[in-house]
Amino acid sequence: MNVALLVNGLQPTDRMHALAFDDRGLQYGDGLFETALLTGGRIRFLEDHLERLEAGCNRLGIAGPERALLLKDLGVLTAGRGEGILKIIVTRGAGGRGYRPPDKAVSTRIVAVYPPVDPAAPAGTGIVVRWCETRLGRNAGLAGIKHLNRLEQVLAQGEWRDPAIAEGLMFDTEGEVVAATAGNLFVVREGMLCTPDLRYCGIRGVMRGRVLAAARSSGIPVEELPLWRNDIESATEAFVTNAVRGIRPIVGLEGTRWPVGDVTTRLATSLGLW
Amino acid sequence: MNVALLVNGLQPTDRMHALAFDDRGLQYGDGLFETALLTGGRIRFLEDHLERLEAGCNRLGIAGPERALLLKDLGVLTAGRGEGILKIIVTRGAGGRGYRPPDKAVSTRIVAVYPPVDPAAPAGTGIVVRWCETRLGRNAGLAGIKHLNRLEQVLAQGEWRDPAIAEGLMFDTEGEVVAATAGNLFVVREGMLCTPDLRYCGIRGVMRGRVLAAARSSGIPVEELPLWRNDIESATEAFVTNAVRGIRPIVGLEGTRWPVGDVTTRLATSLGLW
Repeated sequence: MNVALLVNGLQPTDRMHALAFDDRGLQYGDGLFETALLTGGRIRFLEDHLERLEAGCNRLGIAGPERALLLKDLGVLTAGRGEGILKIIVTRGAGGRGYRPPDKAVSTRIVAVYPPVDPAAPAGTGIVVRWCETRLGRNAGLAGIKHLNRLEQVLAQGEWRDPAIAEGLMFDTEGEVVAATAGNLFVVREGMLCTPDLRYCGIRGVMRGRVLAAARSSGIPVEELPLWRNDIESATEAFVTNAVRGIRPIVGLEGTRWPVGDVTTRLATSLGLW
Repeated sequence: MNVALLVNGLQPTDRMHALAFDDRGLQYGDGLFETALLTGGRIRFLEDHLERLEAGCNRLGIAGPERALLLKDLGVLTAGRGEGILKIIVTRGAGGRGYRPPDKAVSTRIVAVYPPVDPAAPAGTGIVVRWCETRLGRNAGLAGIKHLNRLEQVLAQGEWRDPAIAEGLMFDTEGEVVAATAGNLFVVREGMLCTPDLRYCGIRGVMRGRVLAAARSSGIPVEELPLWRNDIESATEAFVTNAVRGIRPIVGLEGTRWPVGDVTTRLATSLGLW
């Protein structure tokens, strides 16, 4: 795959040998990441991504890189490039054997640009999703941030191979609906835009934040709350958000069918996504 | 730090550049590890470590390395070496952007030998431990195996710096006591050896398995069960186990004090640890 890469601001001479073996990102998943869309030569919602990354570093007690360093890396990698997917990883850095964070860890920053995703269909085309068996564990201390401990999402996406299924919806261990494997979930119920509150698990997506803000400024009533399977299945509209793919209406979920709804369309239009 | 290292059987020319940036161990914590003791030129409980590693690969659907390859790496690294700490990491390997496990992933195997730990005190010396604030999330699907998603343990060990505190005991999110940050927990209650059952979280330690087997063959009654804070504080003996440090009696836990107990001593003796 054609990927441009900087590790701590330097281009590795060999992409297969980019990282220290004792980097805590590998050893313990001790770090955070961001995935953003490069479009028309600009990184969409860059400020939101950097804010979430910094919030994650604060939560984990990681002395992350200066924002100016990240911006410089991003400038180098995106120069002359119009479209792509940006991935930023920040780890606590290299550290001796054992879980304890080193006193003087120097964080590792990795920035990579991938080629753009091939849109399987035009923006606004509905997707079919499924329920996943793999559950999300609850831990309020890690909820919301985009840390590197993602085995649950890996196992969930490993549950199906049918290319007609675009996403999987995940329950937590108590049966609350939390999110899609790689995106947040919204439904419309009695005219109200509803999304899981993520108090115990899940990631506060950048696109999720933009959708909530767009709804509020459009006068659409919004609630972040616990949602259960029946709340989803009895909704009148449903869609999945993520920073790269924007808003994708759900038109099928096992036995349930929806049209592409009015609220979904209004939000996608107001955000310039469709 | 002086560490000998093999990555997929090869010695990296530069330890700072040992791993592919898109290795899923870094990207998602998509892998497993083992930490074993090298003593007298032999790897203690090697068979148990390899079995747990293979069980973990099976659980995560990782096509792990042939055992013969691992044994060869271990042979190379331990040749002529008497004492040390072995770390084995197996990840799902390099893979494209996205959580979904690649169809044809080739696992990465990393084997490293660290210098022996400096025993702060003779074997059998009691340790003082604390309760940790950081909780362990519950997810039966990931319980027991030694996967690479270890942010909870990292945050827990980051809670204290006092070198007089050797370990921290962790609750899960519902308040059950699960384990120490880097070891399993045993207590003796009314002559019964009790340890958390790990049905929702925690790692099935190699030393834990050996202690349970030693107890059973010594006629000490054993129970794996849910344990709560009061069950620990009202116990008559308590100790922590791990593969490197063996059995460490707990003599202090905040307000609670214990002597080094008879059952603890019998078990440590029968396993040849003290």
